[in-house]
Amino acid sequence: MEEDLKANLATETTGKPIICKVCRKAGEALVIEDIEVAPPKAWEVRIKILCTSLCHTDLSFWKLDLGPIAAFPRIFGHEAVGIVESVGEHVEEVSEGDTVVPVFFPECGDCRDCKSSKSNVCTKFVNKYYNAMPRDEVGRFKDMFGEPIHHFVHVSSFSEYTVVDITQVVKISPQLPVEKACLLSCGVATGIGAVWKVARVEEGSIVAIFGLGAVGLAAVQTAKLQGASMIIGVDSNPEKEDIGKRFGITNFIDPKSCGEKKPSQVIKELTDGGADYCFECIGSAAVMQDAVESSREGWGRTVILGVEPRGIPLSLDCLDILKGKTVVGSLFGGIKPKLDIPALVQKCMNEELNLDGFITHEVSFHDINKAFDYLIQGQSLRCIIWMDK
Amino acid sequence: MEEDLKANLATETTGKPIICKVCRKAGEALVIEDIEVAPPKAWEVRIKILCTSLCHTDLSFWKLDLGPIAAFPRIFGHEAVGIVESVGEHVEEVSEGDTVVPVFFPECGDCRDCKSSKSNVCTKFVNKYYNAMPRDEVGRFKDMFGEPIHHFVHVSSFSEYTVVDITQVVKISPQLPVEKACLLSCGVATGIGAVWKVARVEEGSIVAIFGLGAVGLAAVQTAKLQGASMIIGVDSNPEKEDIGKRFGITNFIDPKSCGEKKPSQVIKELTDGGADYCFECIGSAAVMQDAVESSREGWGRTVILGVEPRGIPLSLDCLDILKGKTVVGSLFGGIKPKLDIPALVQKCMNEELNLDGFITHEVSFHDINKAFDYLIQGQSLRCIIWMDK
Repeated sequence: MEEDLKANLATETTGKPIICKVCRKAGEALVIEDIEVAPPKAWEVRIKILCTSLCHTDLSFWKLDLGPIAAFPRIFGHEAVGIVESVGEHVEEVSEGDTVVPVFFPECGDCRDCKSSKSNVCTKFVNKYYNAMPRDEVGRFKDMFGEPIHHFVHVSSFSEYTVVDITQVVKISPQLPVEKACLLSCGVATGIGAVWKVARVEEGSIVAIFGLGAVGLAAVQTAKLQGASMIIGVDSNPEKEDIGKRFGITNFIDPKSCGEKKPSQVIKELTDGGADYCFECIGSAAVMQDAVESSREGWGRTVILGVEPRGIPLSLDCLDILKGKTVVGSLFGGIKPKLDIPALVQKCMNEELNLDGFITHEVSFHDINKAFDYLIQGQSLRCIIWMDK
Repeated sequence: MEEDLKANLATETTGKPIICKVCRKAGEALVIEDIEVAPPKAWEVRIKILCTSLCHTDLSFWKLDLGPIAAFPRIFGHEAVGIVESVGEHVEEVSEGDTVVPVFFPECGDCRDCKSSKSNVCTKFVNKYYNAMPRDEVGRFKDMFGEPIHHFVHVSSFSEYTVVDITQVVKISPQLPVEKACLLSCGVATGIGAVWKVARVEEGSIVAIFGLGAVGLAAVQTAKLQGASMIIGVDSNPEKEDIGKRFGITNFIDPKSCGEKKPSQVIKELTDGGADYCFECIGSAAVMQDAVESSREGWGRTVILGVEPRGIPLSLDCLDILKGKTVVGSLFGGIKPKLDIPALVQKCMNEELNLDGFITHEVSFHDINKAFDYLIQGQSLRCIIWMDK
């Protein structure tokens, strides 16, 4: 079957522009229209998306108008699984028909960071121009009038086809159901990596997790797997208490129910001094500050995972930090895409990791706005958007 | 001779109040007057100070009027070596005649932190009331009118005698010259510990050190011992360039000579992306921020050592931190006093550590104001104040 698919894809589209349906408008309900997706250039891969899911980062950038650094019209979407449709010159790592995960986070394999086990931030590619392709800064999408449509974090998976640089394409086993594999390309892997690779939570630890979305719940699940003795979930949506408990929280704090107190004060009282490890999974500078305050003097470690999109600085009490506290930022939970995503796929196949609980909704591509509504209303963790249904 | 001293001390003073000379007034030139030093209560040690040195923390608190948390009149001083004059009930760790270092930083040995290798912050004693003794919150100093004189960080070594809780007394070998041992009770040990215990600088690392006072230069010296390949010193006093080079800096940045650029921009250019390890040894929130900006994406680690006395928060760019940067605060450079100070004393006796370069001035107790002038004018690193000369 894989061979058939490979043959079909190659015959139909290789080397040609593709007319396909995409979501275009931002800040308001998405619309579907026909666009042209250019063939891949050197070091690029054109991918037929099978399924994609909606992450809070899509939502944040969809809501905000950040000017030229994130231009509209734009194709959102960055958690996905697809099949390689064709590859450009110099691409040897994947070939037509391979199952791949396009990832927002590059790994060139050549720079000092990619070669070091201390970093997952590919310094050669991480700060590239985000509205188009990283190498030539030209987009591969055009509307029917020939006007450019911008990319999103070099993935743009809310499209039947997309073009992605090889540094952001990870080949995975086709054995894992694609709706699960797709979760490992951003949020869920971020939460797993933060606990497993960045904080290295030990047995018996006290953990506080701020924000019980998919990232936070993945952190909860991983902290439980690591043997944490107390896992405190903090979320302003009271419905997250039950969901959180299913994933492993032992205590729940709704900041709105703390009266005059901040969650950090409640956590310090609950834990007799503070949590060993705190995780900020929201992207709010104020929550980051409260997470640091929640951490224990002496060795408290706060991992910042959330992306603060408004440019608000993180304000820390110098004397509080001085008492042996650590703040560590982590993009993508310390995950090195090409090394760690295939390993996480394997853990899922071995049933060491269970991603079933994250998929709360499934819709067809035509109903993508429903996925936005579910997430905005706090109803969904991950809504899988099927491209061909 | 040690025996003689023990006999003399015991005969003259044990169990009695002591009339001695101290420095009293803050914020202006210190004056010497006679005061009464009460005998030690349970878990306390009365110490005859042999020599003491002036640290920037004395200077900072001397300049500022912080209200009831740091009341005047007060006896400053917290880097010293002395001889135990007498001990209170329950004190078994030291006895009359022992050479000791009183330390601003407690180690009770009993709390969860003292028992853990991850922390040097004795949570049982660290947040105690600082104007008097930690257990009963009563001072042991009175002026000739019977009015209390306050303590400073439970040490108050600018006095011929002082009373210190046993949690803050470290017995050391009498073999090391006391003027060197005295340096290991605060600033110099902080700089050593930050590099050695907190950052764990590896061979070949690029290091940036902000503030080339005694703490910063101790960090420079230790980074050099650890094999750092590039050690950038940042200080607004241009005279620190030559001093820094004697200790091991390879590059010097005077922020006033950077034109429009911040030191962080110069460091990023010099190092092609930023330093592996940054150390803030000043106590300025603005410098802390620039230190973090100077650190490398991916694995840059900034150790905060300086005490920001004005309550100004540390403001960090959330997106910068997110790129794999770490900020870690450290009181006393991660040094556990009773474990590490005797070990550092031994390293000095073995000539693995050389403290000669830190002692730039020596004065008699009567000339203590000269020590303040030297430090204020940036002329001294450490000025040893001899009590009996």
